[in-house]
Amino acid sequence: MCWKDDILVPTANRFLGSLDKILDKALAFAQRKEFDPSVLINARLAPDMLALPKQVQIACDMAARGVARLSGTEVPSFPDTETTIPELKARIAKALAFVNSVPAAKFAGSETREVVVPSRRGDTKFDGVGYLRDYVLPNLHFHVTTAYAILRHNGVELGKNDYLGA
Amino acid sequence: MCWKDDILVPTANRFLGSLDKILDKALAFAQRKEFDPSVLINARLAPDMLALPKQVQIACDMAARGVARLSGTEVPSFPDTETTIPELKARIAKALAFVNSVPAAKFAGSETREVVVPSRRGDTKFDGVGYLRDYVLPNLHFHVTTAYAILRHNGVELGKNDYLGA
Repeated sequence: MCWKDDILVPTANRFLGSLDKILDKALAFAQRKEFDPSVLINARLAPDMLALPKQVQIACDMAARGVARLSGTEVPSFPDTETTIPELKARIAKALAFVNSVPAAKFAGSETREVVVPSRRGDTKFDGVGYLRDYVLPNLHFHVTTAYAILRHNGVELGKNDYLGA
Repeated sequence: MCWKDDILVPTANRFLGSLDKILDKALAFAQRKEFDPSVLINARLAPDMLALPKQVQIACDMAARGVARLSGTEVPSFPDTETTIPELKARIAKALAFVNSVPAAKFAGSETREVVVPSRRGDTKFDGVGYLRDYVLPNLHFHVTTAYAILRHNGVELGKNDYLGA
């Protein structure tokens, strides 16, 4: 069971932490360039791709739901109401408060726990390892990276170490 | 030691496999739209970001070097010479051939193995878990996602399941 608290909780803290600091840099960039930060809130990389807030919201949900499902804790629900960078930072703080509230002992046996992820196209079943490896970590990294890419594409001065938290 | 072959090798296969199929879709898109695929090879999301080939090359190196360093195998070196989509697909095939060539037994003890990653700014030391969690997986996902984002931004019809390999 080395992977559950060795991997998921530290990954959530590191990469949602990076995302929080990336949002700080985005806000500072808008202030320095004297444009409305809502321009960045509405930014996306393609017309049919999700804009910045949804990237942050999904990253938060991946971490919080991953922890909930692997620990057998009730899956928390956060309404997607954020429309400003400070509100997105508060969403990250709420997700991390939940992630860090679950006792390590609750993850016992989670590598073989059956996890069901509901979606519009039907339920997907995983065992715990597959859920972490093939769903939670890839989605968390995907949405943090996409938020980074949206901001980078719009001129925010970011480098990969902002993502890696190194 | 559940994490080493339970996580790294399947992740490398799944996400480099996704990247390979994403490149197929990029090439098909260029052919259907009758433009030179080298347009996509030169695409990037910001003038000071890496273009598509380097994203693929780094994703491949993360997987291959991750497997090498965690298994105590010689770190393979692949020259960054690819300039076409078929060449990038061949690079992925070479990386996966190496990833899948290392016997599982070689990973014994790798969670505590000291790993040193050299860079221009000096060496970074990790234990095996930290190297996997904070460096290999995040970089692999970052560069596959960025390749996806570059192509998506340029009109290639991709959805998140192309990334997830679901």
